[in-house]
Amino acid sequence: MLLKTIVSEGLAHHSYLVGGGDEAAIVDPSRDVDRYLEAASDAGLRITRIFETHRNEDYISGACELAQRTGATVWRGRSPDFDVPYAKVAEEGKQFEFGDLRLKVLYTPGHTDDSISVVLVHTETGDSPVGVFTGDALFVGDVGRTDFYPDRAEEVAGLLYDSLHDKLLPIGDQAQIWPAHGSGSVCGSGIAKREFSTIGDERRNNPKLQLDRKAFIEAKTSEHHYKPPYFERMEAANMGDSPGLQRLPRPAPLAMQQLERSLANGAQLLDLRPGQSIAGACIAEAIAIPLPMLAAFGGWFLDSQRPIVLLLEQASDRERAVRTLVRIGFERIDGFLAGGADSWATAAKPLQALHGIDVHQLKKRLAGDQPPLLLDVRSIDEYEQGHIAGAEHHYVGQIEQKAPDLPRDRPIVTYCKSGKRALVAAAALRRLGHQEVSVCWGSIKAWQAAGFELTDARKAS
Amino acid sequence: MLLKTIVSEGLAHHSYLVGGGDEAAIVDPSRDVDRYLEAASDAGLRITRIFETHRNEDYISGACELAQRTGATVWRGRSPDFDVPYAKVAEEGKQFEFGDLRLKVLYTPGHTDDSISVVLVHTETGDSPVGVFTGDALFVGDVGRTDFYPDRAEEVAGLLYDSLHDKLLPIGDQAQIWPAHGSGSVCGSGIAKREFSTIGDERRNNPKLQLDRKAFIEAKTSEHHYKPPYFERMEAANMGDSPGLQRLPRPAPLAMQQLERSLANGAQLLDLRPGQSIAGACIAEAIAIPLPMLAAFGGWFLDSQRPIVLLLEQASDRERAVRTLVRIGFERIDGFLAGGADSWATAAKPLQALHGIDVHQLKKRLAGDQPPLLLDVRSIDEYEQGHIAGAEHHYVGQIEQKAPDLPRDRPIVTYCKSGKRALVAAAALRRLGHQEVSVCWGSIKAWQAAGFELTDARKAS
Amino acid sequence: MLLKTIVSEGLAHHSYLVGGGDEAAIVDPSRDVDRYLEAASDAGLRITRIFETHRNEDYISGACELAQRTGATVWRGRSPDFDVPYAKVAEEGKQFEFGDLRLKVLYTPGHTDDSISVVLVHTETGDSPVGVFTGDALFVGDVGRTDFYPDRAEEVAGLLYDSLHDKLLPIGDQAQIWPAHGSGSVCGSGIAKREFSTIGDERRNNPKLQLDRKAFIEAKTSEHHYKPPYFERMEAANMGDSPGLQRLPRPAPLAMQQLERSLANGAQLLDLRPGQSIAGACIAEAIAIPLPMLAAFGGWFLDSQRPIVLLLEQASDRERAVRTLVRIGFERIDGFLAGGADSWATAAKPLQALHGIDVHQLKKRLAGDQPPLLLDVRSIDEYEQGHIAGAEHHYVGQIEQKAPDLPRDRPIVTYCKSGKRALVAAAALRRLGHQEVSVCWGSIKAWQAAGFELTDARKAS
Amino acid sequence: MLLKTIVSEGLAHHSYLVGGGDEAAIVDPSRDVDRYLEAASDAGLRITRIFETHRNEDYISGACELAQRTGATVWRGRSPDFDVPYAKVAEEGKQFEFGDLRLKVLYTPGHTDDSISVVLVHTETGDSPVGVFTGDALFVGDVGRTDFYPDRAEEVAGLLYDSLHDKLLPIGDQAQIWPAHGSGSVCGSGIAKREFSTIGDERRNNPKLQLDRKAFIEAKTSEHHYKPPYFERMEAANMGDSPGLQRLPRPAPLAMQQLERSLANGAQLLDLRPGQSIAGACIAEAIAIPLPMLAAFGGWFLDSQRPIVLLLEQASDRERAVRTLVRIGFERIDGFLAGGADSWATAAKPLQALHGIDVHQLKKRLAGDQPPLLLDVRSIDEYEQGHIAGAEHHYVGQIEQKAPDLPRDRPIVTYCKSGKRALVAAAALRRLGHQEVSVCWGSIKAWQAAGFELTDARKAS
Repeated sequence: MLLKTIVSEGLAHHSYLVGGGDEAAIVDPSRDVDRYLEAASDAGLRITRIFETHRNEDYISGACELAQRTGATVWRGRSPDFDVPYAKVAEEGKQFEFGDLRLKVLYTPGHTDDSISVVLVHTETGDSPVGVFTGDALFVGDVGRTDFYPDRAEEVAGLLYDSLHDKLLPIGDQAQIWPAHGSGSVCGSGIAKREFSTIGDERRNNPKLQLDRKAFIEAKTSEHHYKPPYFERMEAANMGDSPGLQRLPRPAPLAMQQLERSLANGAQLLDLRPGQSIAGACIAEAIAIPLPMLAAFGGWFLDSQRPIVLLLEQASDRERAVRTLVRIGFERIDGFLAGGADSWATAAKPLQALHGIDVHQLKKRLAGDQPPLLLDVRSIDEYEQGHIAGAEHHYVGQIEQKAPDLPRDRPIVTYCKSGKRALVAAAALRRLGHQEVSVCWGSIKAWQAAGFELTDARKAS
Repeated sequence: MLLKTIVSEGLAHHSYLVGGGDEAAIVDPSRDVDRYLEAASDAGLRITRIFETHRNEDYISGACELAQRTGATVWRGRSPDFDVPYAKVAEEGKQFEFGDLRLKVLYTPGHTDDSISVVLVHTETGDSPVGVFTGDALFVGDVGRTDFYPDRAEEVAGLLYDSLHDKLLPIGDQAQIWPAHGSGSVCGSGIAKREFSTIGDERRNNPKLQLDRKAFIEAKTSEHHYKPPYFERMEAANMGDSPGLQRLPRPAPLAMQQLERSLANGAQLLDLRPGQSIAGACIAEAIAIPLPMLAAFGGWFLDSQRPIVLLLEQASDRERAVRTLVRIGFERIDGFLAGGADSWATAAKPLQALHGIDVHQLKKRLAGDQPPLLLDVRSIDEYEQGHIAGAEHHYVGQIEQKAPDLPRDRPIVTYCKSGKRALVAAAALRRLGHQEVSVCWGSIKAWQAAGFELTDARKAS
Repeated sequence: MLLKTIVSEGLAHHSYLVGGGDEAAIVDPSRDVDRYLEAASDAGLRITRIFETHRNEDYISGACELAQRTGATVWRGRSPDFDVPYAKVAEEGKQFEFGDLRLKVLYTPGHTDDSISVVLVHTETGDSPVGVFTGDALFVGDVGRTDFYPDRAEEVAGLLYDSLHDKLLPIGDQAQIWPAHGSGSVCGSGIAKREFSTIGDERRNNPKLQLDRKAFIEAKTSEHHYKPPYFERMEAANMGDSPGLQRLPRPAPLAMQQLERSLANGAQLLDLRPGQSIAGACIAEAIAIPLPMLAAFGGWFLDSQRPIVLLLEQASDRERAVRTLVRIGFERIDGFLAGGADSWATAAKPLQALHGIDVHQLKKRLAGDQPPLLLDVRSIDEYEQGHIAGAEHHYVGQIEQKAPDLPRDRPIVTYCKSGKRALVAAAALRRLGHQEVSVCWGSIKAWQAAGFELTDARKAS
Repeated sequence: MLLKTIVSEGLAHHSYLVGGGDEAAIVDPSRDVDRYLEAASDAGLRITRIFETHRNEDYISGACELAQRTGATVWRGRSPDFDVPYAKVAEEGKQFEFGDLRLKVLYTPGHTDDSISVVLVHTETGDSPVGVFTGDALFVGDVGRTDFYPDRAEEVAGLLYDSLHDKLLPIGDQAQIWPAHGSGSVCGSGIAKREFSTIGDERRNNPKLQLDRKAFIEAKTSEHHYKPPYFERMEAANMGDSPGLQRLPRPAPLAMQQLERSLANGAQLLDLRPGQSIAGACIAEAIAIPLPMLAAFGGWFLDSQRPIVLLLEQASDRERAVRTLVRIGFERIDGFLAGGADSWATAAKPLQALHGIDVHQLKKRLAGDQPPLLLDVRSIDEYEQGHIAGAEHHYVGQIEQKAPDLPRDRPIVTYCKSGKRALVAAAALRRLGHQEVSVCWGSIKAWQAAGFELTDARKAS
């Protein structure tokens, strides 16, 4: 029996290859399916089955293309609302046996109506489940979001409670859980920084599993989640035949002249350099998102109707950039600037500073006569758990919408937890014409490390 | 929290890096410590603690060198018999906290007197153990050997029973187990082909954990295990300051003339080509062990007093060969023959066939007038569960000792489960002067696939 | 200025990327164009021009697909016979400047009518050529074949002479030569084992350039070359729009049952294991060609009308196998047997020995009462320069056609220079039903190393 | 015959492996000898000879350690001044034959007294040299420095002239040249951007080879070269037994607390991030040199008496950093900051901006009332060929010495050709307490791209 986790970095999306005998099943494949084909071939396994635990909203599924290229069947849960043309419906309890293993489908709705979990039994050793693929129902330390059906908020929270308590916990303490997301995903803010867990561990320690049904529903319906605008395109893609890639786009290196032509023709410039490089030499018109943050924030800022040209720290970043973009539905990538930011500079293109300040400087400026406008760009939950006195809250993903309301004649300083989201927000404001924007390096972590205090908004209110 | 399994292929030895905050602990490092240093640096972690779950007998520990190169402390259990000069004794219950995790030492004697297990708690999420490093006490589907103290056979089997039932099972069904060996190790013949498990899963399904104390002791004391001769050297090395490597040996390519000089000076020629290559063009004087089998069988055939020269299928195999050899205590490696077997052939050095026959040919020859002597070289347990009628049993590891008693004037055919051990045995007989040796390709697996019958020795007796 | 040689192993085909400024030209791309795209992107260069030095006959060109995927223009010489629809004709003397370099087209017919060479000037340093891409006109130590127009044999040999003496030598001694083939190619048997040379070096030392026009024509028209049957398909493909790959085929792992189905449906089994493995455990029905020899000999034995299933030494060989096959026009690859020859064996499929003998055994058998039929499978040139007394000559590529004429009741031993081609020939005879075939390990090299004598056929005749 | 160029990036140092038969010679190995051992083993070659073309001054030789680890002999030219204990003197004309090649020593003094060149003949094809290892005598487009013996300036320039004209040019136009340095080396400012050349090409186009003896000596003695302070340590190391490495240092990841302890104990902090990152978030006390520039500039700024701690853009840069440092004689590397600049920031350590401005901003500021002090930090030769009006010249390598003389109350802007050296200079000034330092992005290249004019210092004077 072979189990292999295949991670989409940034999305913190976990897909799985599970092999028995000479066959493999893939659970929740992402759109760049070459890596599943490669992993299966390396192990000498044919991919014969693909499971989608639910209609994914944060990335485009590769199930359809993978099925076409392998002859495998795609299995999904039943949805009251829609059919997925490339997939078959697996009824609850349906079993699949191959080699020394058995998979069994459980219906675990709540996150979505069509959510399933897939139980794994290793028949070589016994009949009790050794693990379960939990999709977005149960994570390590958290449970799935239930905010996708605002009209049925309590109902779906209740459905998830029942799925957890009536379907998943009964599998037994001994079973591993293999969720669709790890720490860092937008699909669960409380996911623990651990890559493994068991039903028993979650039963004991998952905060959400300690609540009774009523408290659980209350908790879930009062949660706040952000939903990036690209989610709707993903859902649509994943309900129909999502467009196959056939092969990964291979962006060409562009000379400055070509880049300019591309921009003139409507392309958007996406600057993926590290945050400190962006700050050091800032291209005002670029959408600036450091590469490791692209999966989480690209969908907030990029325009799906326009092609993309890339500014990379180094040419070797291009594959990672491309994989990230295609997973979240951006495959029109015209190319990348050959020579990167150095080419930009030596072509005498304008470069501006996006000032960075440390917390000591920030503290001093806040205490001065003309304190800057301080923006906390974290999630509202984080803000409410404690922030720097005087800070306004505007979530980084929504900063573009807020920008017109922000004063143009007053310096702005952005902060977040460690400075990363603050940089993205500051760059966005810069792009939208705010001249005096600074990012606070280290942000809340540094603020606390320096021994400065936070205001507890909950106490204050 | 970071957990990374670092496997020594062939030995099926599992070592672990567990990281919390900015520190890492290494559990049961092998002698080629560069890979632990690399893994820790990649993760930005300093190695501050090293745990040895017991005095290993199947490989040389890297704990001492790793400690010297990192400043980490080596922790071990208390042994009634000996002190390990480079290590400190961790008393039962001793705890270590760093970052978001806590490790706690349990004494779990039985396999050896000094065996410990190390429980892991992820303090970010709760106080119940998320897993336990079980060393050679508990494997997936099996338990540790208890044959190392023949005079105290029942006592140590009882100790292991108590360790399992009083120490490990009480940790809770939810806890993962991380043993020192996976499937394929000589330290446990019943290890399941699965890389993960939990206390709960083992409690339910591990055959040895279904027995009561008496039955367990009976079962363990009636088991048969082979103990390769190199084990004693490993034990000795691991009780003192095992010799550090400082850097991995880098065998030089040798021209034929140099190879001959090396052999003339007492080196042993080790042929690591795939089995079919060995059969196709056999060098009679070489110790022939296909590379993937080297870890398991090198210690049976190699002479620790003599240097080694290698015959490789391809030059790029050299690092894997070297790592395998140094782990089991053979670091005097003079070089490898440049050009491999082709160089041997074009130098007009003698090559002989080591005949391979398929099961159809075997069946026919066995039915003939002058049937060959049929040798089953599997373990005695495997032999007793069913073999080809008429086969004598001689374990592959002991074939050299048996060789003088085998007839020289009668053809011999060796078989095992799939043909791999049979090839090693056949080549050993060839080296010792038996001219008419053949290996049965596919062996028992093929025999059964062809629909031929086995004799059940237990029924027969 | 950047120059990068990109080699197709086995074919000993050399293609080139030459970059100036932000552009690159590709000379003679093979069909798997991903590597040119990758190399150009790594260097930050756009591919804007593609040169084909002539209509290639030994592999399928990637020029057309590369042009489609980059927007580059394909440039070729003028042919009296045909147009290549995807290419433009570059007139003699046409120049291309980009960055710090200049390329200039020379017409150098002889090998083919449309052969061109492309001179490179590095304008940063001066106006004299720093090198020339010579296609199949001039190699290191040899010149191109002129046997493709049998009716015009003397004419085209004369054309080549003129190209060499009137076009290439005048470029100047200082210029590097970059031919389309290196040592090991079937396009030139006398190519030196060196990867670089200059016009001056060739002028002095190339044996063919020491001849006057008459002697040159005599020499060229009396050369003997083999022309594998797949050459005609390559020529046809390269005159039209050769079929693009879009992406490299990715053969799936096959279970034995699927392999059998594939074979039953007409697939051919291609055994790419090392020669000694093939000998050790021989699958009679397979076309057996060790992977490094596939490019040179696949085109002699494979049927272009039937799909291929692969037997590999290790799964990681699959990409190399696929690249080699698609370059020579075999892209219908059904998959590879998962588990390789071990799977074959354990499924109880028949395996036979293909005996290998060393030269000492051969010598003894030749001196015996019933000497085997000895086949020299090298080229006729090699045979005529000296062979083992009594050997018949049959070129390895033509062994299938000869097989029916060979005796079935007499043992056969094949030999070549080192034993590699002999193995391919022996396996082919085995496949065609000759039961008693042996390959002579080490062959002529070993024979001579042992101090045995050769017969000089030329003296003898 | 095998020839492989092994480059030390940054130093633009070229070393060579040349293989014939089963042996290899290494020419001018750097100190990290593992790569020569690896390359030779990959090719199946034993290293039997090592040539040092001269006493290197810009890196520590690996000849001594490589000889110890392979048994090879080190060969050098005769020096009037010193013996190198680990090497033998090869008299002029001495020949070495192995396999299909012959090496022959030429004495080519001038750059140093002990400089030799090594001619390569490929005996398979002829007797005329196919190439020559020219050390620091002849480069592509330039010749070696002759400024190391200031008292004998004219004499040694004359020696080099004679070596070039009497020894190297007579080898013949057809011969390749393989120098010890490529473009980017401090050992020759005029080296062309091309990785290959021939004697014939240099004879025609190398500007220095167009001069007669008198003009050559005049030109060479009026050249200006910079000599980094570490050169003297390199020379000393390379005259004695240079200290072997045995294995590459493996810097450990350091937590902030450990980094601080290391700094407190005297370590120097070396910031190797990209220039824009350094500008964006500048650590005032660090020696800041982007990693690709470390080889060229580390020796100007680092203190050889103090250990080094590294700040890296990403942990995977550590091997490149280490190789670069050990080559130029800095092997005391305490570790690298785990988490990089983010760790620095979140620990609330001070970060300052090192302002970057584009040329448009610079132009405006220079035209303003209080123009900044403008520093041109290129070489004096570059400065004299044209600079921005009003700029003072201070070479980047000497900026530390100059810093005390520069005004503290006036803003400074640094520039160079593309902005890279300007960043290093600006960061050095920042470290030495100059608060108002900016770097001009794109520098002269951008200035010219924007259409702005340069002052020609030579005309002016």
